[in-house]
Amino acid sequence: MLHTFFLFSPQYYSNFCKSSIVMVRTVAVIGAGPSGLTSIKGCLEEGLEPTCFESSDDIGGLWRFKECVDPGRANIYQSVIINSSKEMMSYSDFPPPADLPNNMHHTQLLIYLRLYAEAFDLLKHIQFQTAVLSVRQRPDFHVSGQWEVETERSGHRETLVFDAVMVCTGHFTQPHLPLSDFPGIEEFEGKYLHSWEYRSAEGLQGKRVVVVGIGNSGGDIAVDASRIAEQVYLSTRRGAWVVSRVGEGGLPGDLVGTSRWDRLMQTLFPSWIASSIENKVNQIFNHRLYGLQPKHGFFAQIPVVNDDLPGRIISGRVLIKPNIREVRGSSVVFEDGSVVDKVDVVVFATGYNYNYPFLPSGLLANSGLPLCLYRHVFPLGLARPSLAIVGFVCNLGAINPLAEMQARWATRIFKGLLTLPPEKAMLQDIKRDTSTLQNRFACLERHPLQVDHIPYLDSMAKEIGVRPNLLWLLLTEPGLGLRVLLGPCTPYQYRLRGPGQWDGARQAILTQWERVAQPFKTRIAPQEENKIRFSFSLKLVLTMSGTAILLTLFSRHSASSVLSHPADILAKVCTLPETMWGHK
Amino acid sequence: MLHTFFLFSPQYYSNFCKSSIVMVRTVAVIGAGPSGLTSIKGCLEEGLEPTCFESSDDIGGLWRFKECVDPGRANIYQSVIINSSKEMMSYSDFPPPADLPNNMHHTQLLIYLRLYAEAFDLLKHIQFQTAVLSVRQRPDFHVSGQWEVETERSGHRETLVFDAVMVCTGHFTQPHLPLSDFPGIEEFEGKYLHSWEYRSAEGLQGKRVVVVGIGNSGGDIAVDASRIAEQVYLSTRRGAWVVSRVGEGGLPGDLVGTSRWDRLMQTLFPSWIASSIENKVNQIFNHRLYGLQPKHGFFAQIPVVNDDLPGRIISGRVLIKPNIREVRGSSVVFEDGSVVDKVDVVVFATGYNYNYPFLPSGLLANSGLPLCLYRHVFPLGLARPSLAIVGFVCNLGAINPLAEMQARWATRIFKGLLTLPPEKAMLQDIKRDTSTLQNRFACLERHPLQVDHIPYLDSMAKEIGVRPNLLWLLLTEPGLGLRVLLGPCTPYQYRLRGPGQWDGARQAILTQWERVAQPFKTRIAPQEENKIRFSFSLKLVLTMSGTAILLTLFSRHSASSVLSHPADILAKVCTLPETMWGHK
Repeated sequence: MLHTFFLFSPQYYSNFCKSSIVMVRTVAVIGAGPSGLTSIKGCLEEGLEPTCFESSDDIGGLWRFKECVDPGRANIYQSVIINSSKEMMSYSDFPPPADLPNNMHHTQLLIYLRLYAEAFDLLKHIQFQTAVLSVRQRPDFHVSGQWEVETERSGHRETLVFDAVMVCTGHFTQPHLPLSDFPGIEEFEGKYLHSWEYRSAEGLQGKRVVVVGIGNSGGDIAVDASRIAEQVYLSTRRGAWVVSRVGEGGLPGDLVGTSRWDRLMQTLFPSWIASSIENKVNQIFNHRLYGLQPKHGFFAQIPVVNDDLPGRIISGRVLIKPNIREVRGSSVVFEDGSVVDKVDVVVFATGYNYNYPFLPSGLLANSGLPLCLYRHVFPLGLARPSLAIVGFVCNLGAINPLAEMQARWATRIFKGLLTLPPEKAMLQDIKRDTSTLQNRFACLERHPLQVDHIPYLDSMAKEIGVRPNLLWLLLTEPGLGLRVLLGPCTPYQYRLRGPGQWDGARQAILTQWERVAQPFKTRIAPQEENKIRFSFSLKLVLTMSGTAILLTLFSRHSASSVLSHPADILAKVCTLPETMWGHK
Repeated sequence: MLHTFFLFSPQYYSNFCKSSIVMVRTVAVIGAGPSGLTSIKGCLEEGLEPTCFESSDDIGGLWRFKECVDPGRANIYQSVIINSSKEMMSYSDFPPPADLPNNMHHTQLLIYLRLYAEAFDLLKHIQFQTAVLSVRQRPDFHVSGQWEVETERSGHRETLVFDAVMVCTGHFTQPHLPLSDFPGIEEFEGKYLHSWEYRSAEGLQGKRVVVVGIGNSGGDIAVDASRIAEQVYLSTRRGAWVVSRVGEGGLPGDLVGTSRWDRLMQTLFPSWIASSIENKVNQIFNHRLYGLQPKHGFFAQIPVVNDDLPGRIISGRVLIKPNIREVRGSSVVFEDGSVVDKVDVVVFATGYNYNYPFLPSGLLANSGLPLCLYRHVFPLGLARPSLAIVGFVCNLGAINPLAEMQARWATRIFKGLLTLPPEKAMLQDIKRDTSTLQNRFACLERHPLQVDHIPYLDSMAKEIGVRPNLLWLLLTEPGLGLRVLLGPCTPYQYRLRGPGQWDGARQAILTQWERVAQPFKTRIAPQEENKIRFSFSLKLVLTMSGTAILLTLFSRHSASSVLSHPADILAKVCTLPETMWGHK
């Protein structure tokens, strides 16, 4: 594990002179959460030697629930359920067990992570209870690209040298608590806390609770607290689009309307698609009526995922309020002048700051940009691309497949199998990217981490050589090709070919709907009579694959049953949609 | 309050001889819940003298939450929210305050009941902490129709004579716990209880819970417990249709598709409408996929109202299971052979028995019928119709307007203003009714209390003379007429004319959507740009009222936004649908 100073070996110099590529072997991975685990895996795939430093005594990072808040670490609350469905949040060569529910409770997600770690024997690369104190460039960094990593374990400090570093500590560790925006809060007579500290609704019985901020945490906590609190107020400045995990027909929401085809349509007709989705979302519940309507369009911010917020609003258990103007004693005054008295608790679900205290200062933000990372991974200004930030993005879907792709891409860059563009081009790219995002997204200033799922994955996959070749697939195996085009863009698509190709990928795609259906099969509903069987129509549609695109185009936004949508039918063709719906 | 023996007055005899009508003045009302309160009100409206006996120390009945279960009384759990929206559950001359949420928490429903009691000065007619021990016919019952009511208060017994009795003790007081259907339950190593005993999820942290029965209580408790339990299993023999309180576009579910027009369509095309609703419900989540699909059609059982059950199923927090075959130690074996081990708690949400121990035995069930009550109110076999059961029905909607109509009808029968048909005709009617219901409803044996909301109300309203005259309304005030025809069948419709006519009824109907919108107005969403304004189209539609029926007929089941449905538009015409949706 300790670094050997092979830099001075004749072989190294010959390589360096030939291609200016530094031979990378040892990699420090910081953090053993979802990003850290897949970074270890990425290193192993590329024949690198990862050493993962995890400050706690277990893997899982964010997803390991702690009874008491743990400063400096991500903390989730007891009721957390992942917003992404299991097929969308899985690692590309490790489909989740069929029996796990589609949207897992944090305890189950941790099970999945443990299974992943076991399957690829990752644990032996992790040093638990080892905190990273600092990561510094070695004096010869400009030629070696090496880093000195200072760690501490049980009071014992150690400095090790690594050829490369992958930072996987996430962005949910530093609560953002903008108290100065809430005059009077310091003298508030009740209790206030950040959502990061929230554990469960226990203790809120009969209390009057104000939750500030309608991100996913804010929505979750408001709903959670409203079960037993006397009254919950959910204060939001901007409003939000709220969607359910339960998508059309009960399918996981993120499996519907998120295909490559949907993405293409969104690129071609952005405002049409956005307004069509807004209409659909408003048909479930009118956001204006519910006081949630934001000024921004559907794609301008990651929507809030919450299954029960509408139900809590219609029953008055959660009252939506505008932004807080000030706090007076135990009263909260909102910007519309309304006052809520006798508030017991204010929960600030105001998000997180990102901050890597162990990294050289100014590494991430320079050139006047709030975040200066090429593809959200590589800081600029380093003589060698030997430090990668993994999992420092957010999007509508889960972080796992993104972090995995980043790790696959970064390790190949470490190894010199891929090269980064010149510094200037990267800066241009970041600027263009930042400006595009700033135009598109509603509130990006403080948190410029948003990416577009498929384009982002594809951009790296293309370089690695693992982006699915759609045309080839459609010609050689139309069933699979149609699934890749029209079905949900599950991570297995990035294991069909190229480096890291996985023989199970094809099968994983073909059976993805089976795994979606499996956890529901805890009670087999009796056969209904007089119901149309879909077998015939499905088979017919299968033979009509040539007309699929047109059909899809024209029917995309017509009202249709979950089964009659051509895109859905085609996406599910053969892969048990029939048994899924229980028809024989 | 004490009965005076005016039976022997010359005037009485003259009346009796003329019309065989007994002069009724004093009425005992048993129970001060929602049915009891409106029965007192009904008596007062008809100039009768009610005395209400309430065994507890407060009004509210079912809706008064008790920290500890109270044997012999209805008990709700802490999280209960009424399934009906406020406009559908209100009394006909007492619209709920605009600010109350559409689906009220039990604490708010109690507020509404208190306001009702105060508004009509009902409290002074109630004797609290007075239990009714027996209700017996007087020896001269065949001529006097009088009852001896024995009460007990603080150990002191008293027998009073009343001209009539209204029994308003509901049907949620006697838990039905069919332990013999669950072999091994007596030796179950965990704890079991009836839903009647369930207070809150407290104490279920980390427990494995099996809930038996998917009525409204079963669904509620499963969801409630699943917030903190390790795992919840919801066992159902038959499955169920599950609908949300949040209807299309976020409107209260029971205000959409429940108009007189919808009812007419349902009568004309029952299977078409049922299958169309099933499709719609399955589009929200496929009941077969979710293991909930029942064999019976949508209208064959009152659907379960639950906002978050689908969300709890997709996240695996609630697993749907078939019926229990047996219990072994701490394991529960289901009918499909699957076994759940280490079960800590079994909650039987298996409904209630009805039983009126204070009434003469055999009064309610005779002639071989499980329940022999004319229109669910009057027992047969009595020489005088001076005993009415009020609120002993159930339907998709709230009991309040049904109980109120029963009370209005019964008090007029007490007074002789209306007469019951001959005994034979009533028996025929009950038999026909029972048989119709048995054919229509899936599991009526034990609980033959179901009625059809509008036809049931109309049948009594017609006799009283308060059924709205639709044709006349459409001709004289089309705006109001269209609302009565196409809008939700709110109780105010029964105060437009006839005995008990209320001047505020018209206005209550015209402003019902305002009261729906009001509680949402806790945050006014910012104005959107580029959105179609509906003012013009609304006004256009208003002038096109003549074509409304055709429009409705043809568009009833087409996919449409919540705003573009002609029935909805027409129903909301003028009554602020625009401001409701926030457009100016």
